[in-house]
Amino acid sequence: MSEGSDALSTAVVGGSGFTGGELLRLLAGHPGFEIVQATSRSYDRKTVGSVHPNLRELDLRFTDPAELESVDVLFAATPHGVSMERIDEFFDAADTVVDLSADFRLNTAEAYEEWYDGHDAPEYLDRAVYALPELTREQLPGADLIASGGCNATATILGLKPLVDAGLLAADDRVVVDVKVGSSEGGAGGGAASSHPERSGVVRPYAPTGHRHEAEIETFLGLDVAFTAHAVDMVRGASATGHVFPEPVSKGDLWSAYREAYEEEPFVRLVAGGSGVYRYPEPKAVAGTNHAEVGFELDPGNGRVVTFSAIDNMMKGSAGQAVHAANVAFGFEETAGLEFGGLHPVGSP
Amino acid sequence: MSEGSDALSTAVVGGSGFTGGELLRLLAGHPGFEIVQATSRSYDRKTVGSVHPNLRELDLRFTDPAELESVDVLFAATPHGVSMERIDEFFDAADTVVDLSADFRLNTAEAYEEWYDGHDAPEYLDRAVYALPELTREQLPGADLIASGGCNATATILGLKPLVDAGLLAADDRVVVDVKVGSSEGGAGGGAASSHPERSGVVRPYAPTGHRHEAEIETFLGLDVAFTAHAVDMVRGASATGHVFPEPVSKGDLWSAYREAYEEEPFVRLVAGGSGVYRYPEPKAVAGTNHAEVGFELDPGNGRVVTFSAIDNMMKGSAGQAVHAANVAFGFEETAGLEFGGLHPVGSP
Amino acid sequence: MSEGSDALSTAVVGGSGFTGGELLRLLAGHPGFEIVQATSRSYDRKTVGSVHPNLRELDLRFTDPAELESVDVLFAATPHGVSMERIDEFFDAADTVVDLSADFRLNTAEAYEEWYDGHDAPEYLDRAVYALPELTREQLPGADLIASGGCNATATILGLKPLVDAGLLAADDRVVVDVKVGSSEGGAGGGAASSHPERSGVVRPYAPTGHRHEAEIETFLGLDVAFTAHAVDMVRGASATGHVFPEPVSKGDLWSAYREAYEEEPFVRLVAGGSGVYRYPEPKAVAGTNHAEVGFELDPGNGRVVTFSAIDNMMKGSAGQAVHAANVAFGFEETAGLEFGGLHPVGSP
Amino acid sequence: MSEGSDALSTAVVGGSGFTGGELLRLLAGHPGFEIVQATSRSYDRKTVGSVHPNLRELDLRFTDPAELESVDVLFAATPHGVSMERIDEFFDAADTVVDLSADFRLNTAEAYEEWYDGHDAPEYLDRAVYALPELTREQLPGADLIASGGCNATATILGLKPLVDAGLLAADDRVVVDVKVGSSEGGAGGGAASSHPERSGVVRPYAPTGHRHEAEIETFLGLDVAFTAHAVDMVRGASATGHVFPEPVSKGDLWSAYREAYEEEPFVRLVAGGSGVYRYPEPKAVAGTNHAEVGFELDPGNGRVVTFSAIDNMMKGSAGQAVHAANVAFGFEETAGLEFGGLHPVGSP
Repeated sequence: MSEGSDALSTAVVGGSGFTGGELLRLLAGHPGFEIVQATSRSYDRKTVGSVHPNLRELDLRFTDPAELESVDVLFAATPHGVSMERIDEFFDAADTVVDLSADFRLNTAEAYEEWYDGHDAPEYLDRAVYALPELTREQLPGADLIASGGCNATATILGLKPLVDAGLLAADDRVVVDVKVGSSEGGAGGGAASSHPERSGVVRPYAPTGHRHEAEIETFLGLDVAFTAHAVDMVRGASATGHVFPEPVSKGDLWSAYREAYEEEPFVRLVAGGSGVYRYPEPKAVAGTNHAEVGFELDPGNGRVVTFSAIDNMMKGSAGQAVHAANVAFGFEETAGLEFGGLHPVGSP
Repeated sequence: MSEGSDALSTAVVGGSGFTGGELLRLLAGHPGFEIVQATSRSYDRKTVGSVHPNLRELDLRFTDPAELESVDVLFAATPHGVSMERIDEFFDAADTVVDLSADFRLNTAEAYEEWYDGHDAPEYLDRAVYALPELTREQLPGADLIASGGCNATATILGLKPLVDAGLLAADDRVVVDVKVGSSEGGAGGGAASSHPERSGVVRPYAPTGHRHEAEIETFLGLDVAFTAHAVDMVRGASATGHVFPEPVSKGDLWSAYREAYEEEPFVRLVAGGSGVYRYPEPKAVAGTNHAEVGFELDPGNGRVVTFSAIDNMMKGSAGQAVHAANVAFGFEETAGLEFGGLHPVGSP
Repeated sequence: MSEGSDALSTAVVGGSGFTGGELLRLLAGHPGFEIVQATSRSYDRKTVGSVHPNLRELDLRFTDPAELESVDVLFAATPHGVSMERIDEFFDAADTVVDLSADFRLNTAEAYEEWYDGHDAPEYLDRAVYALPELTREQLPGADLIASGGCNATATILGLKPLVDAGLLAADDRVVVDVKVGSSEGGAGGGAASSHPERSGVVRPYAPTGHRHEAEIETFLGLDVAFTAHAVDMVRGASATGHVFPEPVSKGDLWSAYREAYEEEPFVRLVAGGSGVYRYPEPKAVAGTNHAEVGFELDPGNGRVVTFSAIDNMMKGSAGQAVHAANVAFGFEETAGLEFGGLHPVGSP
Repeated sequence: MSEGSDALSTAVVGGSGFTGGELLRLLAGHPGFEIVQATSRSYDRKTVGSVHPNLRELDLRFTDPAELESVDVLFAATPHGVSMERIDEFFDAADTVVDLSADFRLNTAEAYEEWYDGHDAPEYLDRAVYALPELTREQLPGADLIASGGCNATATILGLKPLVDAGLLAADDRVVVDVKVGSSEGGAGGGAASSHPERSGVVRPYAPTGHRHEAEIETFLGLDVAFTAHAVDMVRGASATGHVFPEPVSKGDLWSAYREAYEEEPFVRLVAGGSGVYRYPEPKAVAGTNHAEVGFELDPGNGRVVTFSAIDNMMKGSAGQAVHAANVAFGFEETAGLEFGGLHPVGSP
């Protein structure tokens, strides 16, 4: 656990889930935050390490989520719907709330009516800043309600944003996004479909249409996308392949657009061609890290640009992005606590 | 090995590869064929079972591919380029040749110039019948050169054909096909990218544009498709997701189109919704079998139909399809030798 | 579903579990049995194919387990404890009961006190025949209560039995058995430890000591074994490695012992050395089949013989063994319904 | 790459292999070393990141291994036999050599005759210090030839050492060690058995007897072990299960022995029982880290103690251990560069 008089006192609500565990790992290694509470209804009083074996050295026990301590920052890693119910309570306990669920990502109550089951605390929606720092960096400093972007939305947006910024894609252009995701997206709960015998080796369409992340993508990228997700056999990772049909472009145009978008970004790297095994973005190359790999290929015969982006859904798609956003919000070094660069080789990852 | 005076004497050239092994497995259990030779340069004189452990009971040794025996039927499971070189030799040895490579799938020497490195025996191209029985069943009886359809092409064509047949897709409609394939597509040879440490847990774009199977798809489906393939972590399987934007259709229209296309087909089943874990086509559900699962979903918000198809690339995508085609060609029961219905649960598969 | 006036009418109780699904698959392809009922509390009235996607063509719906039909044979694939509670009811409905649980494997109520939580119907224990046909074939014809052997016990017993039969192992010799098992052993229910994120890529000791199958092994092999099981990343399969320290033996002695034990066995094959990738028994080589592979290696430096055995825990370790036993009991061909020889390559398996 | 005038200039010979890549990752993040050269015959002049995608940010290209630069420290991550051939050359270039191969682990030329194919530079054997810091920490300061311990030997020794130290195991006690290893042990080269289709889902006995690591174990633990290794489906990891039959002991005795051995060790943690999924050592819990998990279970019925140990074979079993040893040798903080604590959940790992 990070120590020091200047560190912000920090709570993680929902600490026994996969995302909560990632938050605890990152915050424990971060000089700017000091974890003072991690809550879990199911594992109340158990050590954090009994649930997250990588944190066995962490001297911390889960506490009842009903009794929040007073802190500088509260990270909420709870299922959809919990944060909107408890948001007043969160702000009673903390000055700043970083929410990792979908509860404050969209701007309007109407959007929650359309895509979710409505919203319990719509008065907070204006106050929340959507956190995908590559997109909303300038709105983060000073924000006190941060809504960390969703994993599939993040992968999709990062892959397509350079084309939009460069004027190569118009709002009504037809865009297909085909996403492949790992089993950690389903969370620690599981169910029959998540059991190892049923989930091993799959290519399984899920939410083949109408995925809720379409709403985030449309709102923040300004683009309608025809989105389909498939479960594949990995634990961590989301890979988004975009199929777009812009006006004729050259490979040079694409390189310019992507370099322009990301050359200053600490967590985005361009991977498009080259030699060896890893010539395009893939989740294995970023497993465990907050990096996103983004790339593209030109298909002149079909008038198509194929875009690729790969993230670790638990990191750049969730806990890592939340910490990155908090770093920006509090003026810390952007990469603080997020320095791990990944492994090679790595399995699932 | 099947016995009986009426069985056709049969050779498998390239018997130590994955596809050759599948052929040997299927033919050994088929009443209409009697295996008299299996060739392998690398494993000359070794037992078939020393390479393919599921065939340890088969009393057969590989022989040198240079010395072909005289047979009724020769199945060639050799790498691209070998069959076109040896096709005269094959016909010296056999009355009928069933080729599993890409060497005789396309119709013209020009197509081979465009998509491959040209063709050594273009005079055979007219004679060859492309074998995807759901498409070309009527041309197969009596054919003496059968070119078994490619795995990714088969998955793609089966998913989209009902829309084309029903007039819901026009030749110039924009169609995206995003395919996920298992490691057995790479064959027994392997290389760094196929090694277990590098191949486990991947979502890896490969041949992101310009995949050669586009040629088959365009030729036999009459449709340009923007095709991209990804390697994922399974051994057997190909899953093709089509994203198409037809004129407005209802779910009933789609059911009609797909039922019309496949209700008589012994190896195609429609899977589109329902309850439980397996609501859409997936490779696990057909692993080891010659079945294809085909399905769809309607995305009214985006004016899109998403199509799904799943096959075992070694079976319906290769050896199974070749045997199915031979069954039709020789007038055997279509399902002869292809009765295995698969397992549940199954891992990779 | 098999038809024919001579087939035995058959029920499967517990048909929606993994083992029940395997039974339904095998019986549906078996000429001697006709499935008339498959029960499932959770999936009452659902089609069998909605749970077991490999059986989508089977025209059968689950029924309530409380309402058993009158049949010739009832296969019970229920969790431990159910069969002993319902055994009277089972015999009211059926002439012959084949039980796949542990409820009737041991001989005495005392053994159930020691290893389980006692027994509800000890009066049936004498009547039950333990079914591991390689061991108890002669007791099976005419048996009306058949207790199919457990997966880990089967793998262990098959590996060591030749040494016992040949007098190379005495009852008090020290024997270590280290078993590796797939996730299907945990059944369809699952839990946190069985979820894909937690179960992928594991080598996880479970029941490191005191595994209940020790009781079966001691009872039927006449040998105390120090048994430890590990969960590893496969779906189907159990692999048992025995470490034994007999009086000095030669490799020839071992070959004699193993050949003597198994040369007539239709489902056991010896694999001990040779060339290629598959030189020792491994679960991949028998996945989906009722085969067991058995082998050994000599370690003269340590005075040790290492024995290997590999089975598909769902087949030779459960449903396949039950059908094999029923074949013997009813005088069918021993391999009836169990002809499938497996695939190569196969993933998980 | 670490910078700073006080850092030791460092070369990695064999930098494109898996172990070499791990070394480069660790050294690049280590304040005490500055990488000045990484050699690779196959990838000469390619960027390190083109082979190891986690190191894409590293500004370094491979160079020809024939042209060694003058450095303070040279780490050799080459196949067995290379270091013994080039050792004079290594010392011409460097003051200190840390060798990760087996070339300098054993003490005598005779041992190399017995277990390997002899030795080319036996005059160096006395000079080399075997590096398993938990065992040989005191010999490391000032050593100029460090032979980093093997992965399977490390896992085995760490699991059994407390029993030996506590006098619970005598030199002639019978000890069985059954090891399960991941595919990265085979290195980046691969071959048919390492290809994804053949290696996925395996439980494959390899080197079932006569494994060369027996020599290390006997030499440094002073115990003969009957050792057998199995390949299982993970990429990183080695898990060693020891089956030992000591004089009667209590669980308290075992806890005392293990605590005594490891309570001061920064990289060893005891895991023996408790609640949750991770109750015993497993490779997933230490993937990517230099930690070893060690534990045990008592089997009174069989007079047995089962010991468990789990490491990441690339880290505590290779590169991490080498860096740890170098830290001790040069007086750095023992955990310098080795702080990463791992991920949860993690797949393969």
